[in-house]
Amino acid sequence: MKFLILHGPNLNLLGQREPGVYGSATLEEINGYIQSLAEELAVQVEFFQSNHEGALIDKLHATLGVVDAVVFNPGAYTHYSIALRDAVASLPIPVIEVHLSNIHAREDFRHQSVIAPVAAGQIVGFGPASYLLGLRAAVSLVQSGRK
Amino acid sequence: MKFLILHGPNLNLLGQREPGVYGSATLEEINGYIQSLAEELAVQVEFFQSNHEGALIDKLHATLGVVDAVVFNPGAYTHYSIALRDAVASLPIPVIEVHLSNIHAREDFRHQSVIAPVAAGQIVGFGPASYLLGLRAAVSLVQSGRK
Amino acid sequence: MKFLILHGPNLNLLGQREPGVYGSATLEEINGYIQSLAEELAVQVEFFQSNHEGALIDKLHATLGVVDAVVFNPGAYTHYSIALRDAVASLPIPVIEVHLSNIHAREDFRHQSVIAPVAAGQIVGFGPASYLLGLRAAVSLVQSGRK
Amino acid sequence: MKFLILHGPNLNLLGQREPGVYGSATLEEINGYIQSLAEELAVQVEFFQSNHEGALIDKLHATLGVVDAVVFNPGAYTHYSIALRDAVASLPIPVIEVHLSNIHAREDFRHQSVIAPVAAGQIVGFGPASYLLGLRAAVSLVQSGRK
Amino acid sequence: MKFLILHGPNLNLLGQREPGVYGSATLEEINGYIQSLAEELAVQVEFFQSNHEGALIDKLHATLGVVDAVVFNPGAYTHYSIALRDAVASLPIPVIEVHLSNIHAREDFRHQSVIAPVAAGQIVGFGPASYLLGLRAAVSLVQSGRK
Amino acid sequence: MKFLILHGPNLNLLGQREPGVYGSATLEEINGYIQSLAEELAVQVEFFQSNHEGALIDKLHATLGVVDAVVFNPGAYTHYSIALRDAVASLPIPVIEVHLSNIHAREDFRHQSVIAPVAAGQIVGFGPASYLLGLRAAVSLVQSGRK
Amino acid sequence: MKFLILHGPNLNLLGQREPGVYGSATLEEINGYIQSLAEELAVQVEFFQSNHEGALIDKLHATLGVVDAVVFNPGAYTHYSIALRDAVASLPIPVIEVHLSNIHAREDFRHQSVIAPVAAGQIVGFGPASYLLGLRAAVSLVQSGRK
Amino acid sequence: MKFLILHGPNLNLLGQREPGVYGSATLEEINGYIQSLAEELAVQVEFFQSNHEGALIDKLHATLGVVDAVVFNPGAYTHYSIALRDAVASLPIPVIEVHLSNIHAREDFRHQSVIAPVAAGQIVGFGPASYLLGLRAAVSLVQSGRK
Amino acid sequence: MKFLILHGPNLNLLGQREPGVYGSATLEEINGYIQSLAEELAVQVEFFQSNHEGALIDKLHATLGVVDAVVFNPGAYTHYSIALRDAVASLPIPVIEVHLSNIHAREDFRHQSVIAPVAAGQIVGFGPASYLLGLRAAVSLVQSGRK
Amino acid sequence: MKFLILHGPNLNLLGQREPGVYGSATLEEINGYIQSLAEELAVQVEFFQSNHEGALIDKLHATLGVVDAVVFNPGAYTHYSIALRDAVASLPIPVIEVHLSNIHAREDFRHQSVIAPVAAGQIVGFGPASYLLGLRAAVSLVQSGRK
Amino acid sequence: MKFLILHGPNLNLLGQREPGVYGSATLEEINGYIQSLAEELAVQVEFFQSNHEGALIDKLHATLGVVDAVVFNPGAYTHYSIALRDAVASLPIPVIEVHLSNIHAREDFRHQSVIAPVAAGQIVGFGPASYLLGLRAAVSLVQSGRK
Amino acid sequence: MKFLILHGPNLNLLGQREPGVYGSATLEEINGYIQSLAEELAVQVEFFQSNHEGALIDKLHATLGVVDAVVFNPGAYTHYSIALRDAVASLPIPVIEVHLSNIHAREDFRHQSVIAPVAAGQIVGFGPASYLLGLRAAVSLVQSGRK
Repeated sequence: MKFLILHGPNLNLLGQREPGVYGSATLEEINGYIQSLAEELAVQVEFFQSNHEGALIDKLHATLGVVDAVVFNPGAYTHYSIALRDAVASLPIPVIEVHLSNIHAREDFRHQSVIAPVAAGQIVGFGPASYLLGLRAAVSLVQSGRK
Repeated sequence: MKFLILHGPNLNLLGQREPGVYGSATLEEINGYIQSLAEELAVQVEFFQSNHEGALIDKLHATLGVVDAVVFNPGAYTHYSIALRDAVASLPIPVIEVHLSNIHAREDFRHQSVIAPVAAGQIVGFGPASYLLGLRAAVSLVQSGRK
Repeated sequence: MKFLILHGPNLNLLGQREPGVYGSATLEEINGYIQSLAEELAVQVEFFQSNHEGALIDKLHATLGVVDAVVFNPGAYTHYSIALRDAVASLPIPVIEVHLSNIHAREDFRHQSVIAPVAAGQIVGFGPASYLLGLRAAVSLVQSGRK
Repeated sequence: MKFLILHGPNLNLLGQREPGVYGSATLEEINGYIQSLAEELAVQVEFFQSNHEGALIDKLHATLGVVDAVVFNPGAYTHYSIALRDAVASLPIPVIEVHLSNIHAREDFRHQSVIAPVAAGQIVGFGPASYLLGLRAAVSLVQSGRK
Repeated sequence: MKFLILHGPNLNLLGQREPGVYGSATLEEINGYIQSLAEELAVQVEFFQSNHEGALIDKLHATLGVVDAVVFNPGAYTHYSIALRDAVASLPIPVIEVHLSNIHAREDFRHQSVIAPVAAGQIVGFGPASYLLGLRAAVSLVQSGRK
Repeated sequence: MKFLILHGPNLNLLGQREPGVYGSATLEEINGYIQSLAEELAVQVEFFQSNHEGALIDKLHATLGVVDAVVFNPGAYTHYSIALRDAVASLPIPVIEVHLSNIHAREDFRHQSVIAPVAAGQIVGFGPASYLLGLRAAVSLVQSGRK
Repeated sequence: MKFLILHGPNLNLLGQREPGVYGSATLEEINGYIQSLAEELAVQVEFFQSNHEGALIDKLHATLGVVDAVVFNPGAYTHYSIALRDAVASLPIPVIEVHLSNIHAREDFRHQSVIAPVAAGQIVGFGPASYLLGLRAAVSLVQSGRK
Repeated sequence: MKFLILHGPNLNLLGQREPGVYGSATLEEINGYIQSLAEELAVQVEFFQSNHEGALIDKLHATLGVVDAVVFNPGAYTHYSIALRDAVASLPIPVIEVHLSNIHAREDFRHQSVIAPVAAGQIVGFGPASYLLGLRAAVSLVQSGRK
Repeated sequence: MKFLILHGPNLNLLGQREPGVYGSATLEEINGYIQSLAEELAVQVEFFQSNHEGALIDKLHATLGVVDAVVFNPGAYTHYSIALRDAVASLPIPVIEVHLSNIHAREDFRHQSVIAPVAAGQIVGFGPASYLLGLRAAVSLVQSGRK
Repeated sequence: MKFLILHGPNLNLLGQREPGVYGSATLEEINGYIQSLAEELAVQVEFFQSNHEGALIDKLHATLGVVDAVVFNPGAYTHYSIALRDAVASLPIPVIEVHLSNIHAREDFRHQSVIAPVAAGQIVGFGPASYLLGLRAAVSLVQSGRK
Repeated sequence: MKFLILHGPNLNLLGQREPGVYGSATLEEINGYIQSLAEELAVQVEFFQSNHEGALIDKLHATLGVVDAVVFNPGAYTHYSIALRDAVASLPIPVIEVHLSNIHAREDFRHQSVIAPVAAGQIVGFGPASYLLGLRAAVSLVQSGRK
Repeated sequence: MKFLILHGPNLNLLGQREPGVYGSATLEEINGYIQSLAEELAVQVEFFQSNHEGALIDKLHATLGVVDAVVFNPGAYTHYSIALRDAVASLPIPVIEVHLSNIHAREDFRHQSVIAPVAAGQIVGFGPASYLLGLRAAVSLVQSGRK
């Protein structure tokens, strides 16, 4: 099994940006935790980050036939990118939406995700552990054959 | 470490009720899966289900000094019980909100959770695995000392 | 055929409470009218009233395999109890929602029923006769095999 | 006692139009069922159908002194015809609003009736039986002297 | 100068219908008052009433080249008939909207007029005098050459 | 009979201010037209203008026992001064709301009047003639004994 | 193949009415253009215009078994006639909604069409060419067998 | 004179729960202050707390003929329990709504009380003193004979 | 201790204005009741009433260093005067908002107070007693040192 | 005459992505149909697709002086890209908005187009034929000299 | 060139009032900074502050022919004074709206300015420097001849 | 001191695009004016324009340690790009939002800026002078040490 770990806009700044909200781990450190869990679970992971909506769409398209599921933190695009929503909806494989912070405990405009209705599920609020739970969820979904 | 697994209204019907939405596992079977994972993780779990809003509030109050975190599926109370929200907010320990179905892919009125803003985090859409991921999240939060 | 006649919150006060709105018949008198019609139609009826949301949910669950349909006046829970809605939706038998007063001619917040979308139908505004029409509707639905 | 059974727009197509929603009975067949019940109850009924809002208003005006109550299915005019609402409100006799389908289980714009607040009561969701229950309700209202 | 006095739906019932709201004068009596004022002002008036939206539109179209202005009480069509609004907007002559009752002191849905934005002006709340003021306004507008 | 003609904020600038919207007549000229009509109708009129909400309230209070009705152009206060609304509502005499421009054909926020629901009636869109029609309406209301 | 070209309210005034918005072609001229294209495409067309909502509904009902598709400009009824929507939805043949002007570039209340969700498609903004494109679309839909 | 002091959900946790919002006094201490004032005013008080909506409704019903007024802190039920509202409205005695914190200075959803429109009055924001002022208000209302 | 009793717009008319809503006591009588209670509590009170928003702001500014708290009935300014809200927020002393009538049981626009979020607390619905409870609340707040 | 056929996000997946909604034709096939029609009409066409909002804006800018009109399917950007709207508005040539599916028959958020108000017109719901009708519309607009 | 620097309600308290939001400079100090810049730019400035909406309107009217532009901080009137908006709109000279704090980063109700749509421009968030930038903007506008 | 002048989408078209709204200066000319002022103020400026949301985010990230503040015209992204908002919020240096036109005097959807709440301040409506005032504001903020 192989999974894409997809990071959206501004996540390249992790560790520097508002650590009170997002924690002090850098994106490299988080990717390291994910890599460790992937090895423990004996699965493969690939990492990609972009601030460009179009590049994230292109990357999602490029998963066709390559990975079994996607663990996706869409960052701020969560709240308005219907183009990313359509890209997620067009995939035959499950996409798990994850967020570091509890988006429901923040500003009103962060409570709504346009992507969640077409994702397999959503995990929010556990810091870097959100990604690790997301990877476990991905494995579980692929094993059960659910999209 | 000890955890309360708290099930809200109508979850006693699992397996019988709308299996297309909620799956065919009964509440007893789900509790069995959770018990197995608890043993694997060497933690204790206690189970409680009620259809009564007041009984769920009483149970949350009764966790004081007894458990380290709560994994809570508030069922339909998710969407309007500010009284349950206040009970969750009053606890010094983390509460993890879980849902079997992806509430964001269902009716509009199920998209909003009045409890999520005071929960530690939320996990939705993975069927019985939502509880298992919730238990792992609870262990992780207690280990990190976060509420 | 057997039917449950289910009365929600504050209906135990009928006759005393705002007679201008709800009429002067007591709940016992209304149950008497229903009993008479049931005998005329040669069907059985059972009565239950509670002010507790949880108790109404428990009672609905307990109809499984016991009655053929429910005539339900959810009182004020009509307007916000998604938990009752889920209980109604989970039943394999038809539920007929009835109201003594014409809820559409009262305060704005009484115009919406969260239960109606999952009920078989709704009858409002005919005073105690709403229950009698509801019982006839129940018989008709059971005879036609519709839920 | 004499009653007007008033059918609004598109109801002349019953049986042909979306039978999944409205059933397979034609308007003539439904009128036949109503006629039978009228005979059983020893009351008179008159039938009228029009797709013209103005013609329905004219007909309601023409009931003055002629019938004792109206059983009215306003069809799609239910949701916006304030002119029909005013016509109903201007009558000294009771008007019972009926619908074949459960309008609360359909599109959002069908949940609101501008006529219900000035009707005596509303019966929805029982197919042709909605009319029969409506006729019984009319008889009951006239007997009780209520508008 | 010649004017059309145009009465919308349900106004044929004046005197009978909700006299607490609309007063006890019949439409014939009101037309009589208008006729008297027209004679005093040495202008001609023509009267037309219909409950049919289409008939009112047809009549407005038929004013082209025949009358100098229209005094129009659109009744309940005031609040939703965009077709009547378009008919009014298409005329080269001024249309004065009048109402017997103070629509702003009644139900919320009566506060908005879809016709007012394309009328020359609006007069509400003076009972039959609303028409008389409307006729004077029409004469004044025609004299000033304003539409 | 005696009447107060009350002018609200910015009306002292008439003739200078946005003549495309409000016309080229000055307030003095408009008052002159009103004075002429008053003489023709053999009634007395008093004029008052202020940009101060409080001064307009004080003036309305001071009408008690002094005038028989008020013709009031509340200017921009129309749309938000609940204090003026309360002052109008507290008077035992009729208040006629008038506007030079057709407020329903302007910006959305000008469509709503918080004063209209407690006024006797409203006349909008006829330029200075709105005041003249307002004076006639006032005479008519006082003669009919209506508030 | 035969098609009904159906024109809604106020379209009989084309050429006279607000030419800045609707152009200077009369309805007869537009019908002439459509006739020419029909001949070029070797199909038959029938024309009908009415200002009466009910007459348009009757005409739509009368297409059953007579024409293969309808090109329909519902005029102002576009925005509120749920009765026309239901008539369109009840037909087994495709209905193509067309508008001369770009309704999305006009007042807010013209942006919404209650008919579009049940039409096969919508063409707006091309003046008389909207009808010609609509006829081509109709031919294409009938050829493809889609509703 | 005798009064019921009724405490809603989560108030049993006072002193422990969010002391920054609700203060450090326990419910027993607050009841003690109320008891002292009752003795000073020579009136009787009875105390009841429950987290169950149904139990609060039952208790309100049980006041009939037993107490002269109720001082009620509905806690979170304030914002959605229409069933409690109906129970309050059904009582022939005055109910005074009190809150420890200033609900208008907190989250938006706490600004609205569904109970206030049927209460005699409301007192918010004075900590335990809200109850003491509520008791004085109750005495004053009973003495004045107002509901 | 010294307190300002501040009365907003239209309160000078008390006793005359809508006695069904505001009672029959005049402002002088209410001030007399307050004076009596002040003497009983051995505190000083000063009275001020104005219909001018600006004058109320000036008076609030002038309390600096002069009084210990303000009991304020902002009348209709309650619902829109953000300028008064800012003046209240700028004071270092507590302001208690009071209303004679139960504003939550009146028109919708009276349910919201823009001042309450920056007041210490709010007391509504007890007639003149609202002021007396307000004075007691003020004494209690000053004694406790809370703003 | 030369035209740009501009395809927005996710349209590169046509044929693979949700064929129930978008049909089974690939983008290459659709471009082929357009090419054929262009040859039939003796006009030139250029094709461009991108998932990048910025790249679509750059392409629209690059049309200046190069093409005579644009046929644009903005995909999901239709619903929120004000930047694309501004780019369309800044062009001196007409832009025709097209959609394969009937966006008015899908999710609510797809009913609104931020681009339509600045487009020449809109064609929705005809599958690949939407593009062909769009090309014909473009030719017609250029011939008539309209933007 | 001469400019009016106009300060709205509560600004007389600057330095004392919420220094965390508005800074510690007094109004006199800010006027001093503006005076210094005026001298540097060789222009004249006049200062005026009032808490009275009407007095601010009167002052704006009095600028006619006296100053070349106005730098206006409308304080809380920004958000609801349509009367001030109309006064600004009626002036032939530019008005620059300034705010000390970033109103967009504060409470929701402070995000909207009813005055900005008729001002030349708006400058917010730079503390006393907002006024200095406003004066520079005023000079620039007068030099360019723009209103 | 060094500053980034950041231009968002479509600003490369300045001078060509809707000159009635945006003026006739090209982006190069505006950059020239800014350069001149920078030299006068003895500070350095760098210019960057992109139509790509992602490229603007990348550029904002790249300012870390390189410039002291950013003067940013986000163009149409102002109204929906939460990703740009997050990028702005993540910077330790002040960002000044500027607009050429008065966005509050344009379409409703341009009144809201999702970026303003996290910017230091906002300057709108002064044409190219908005940038010059923005540069002065930037210098002032850096000198005062405020973010």
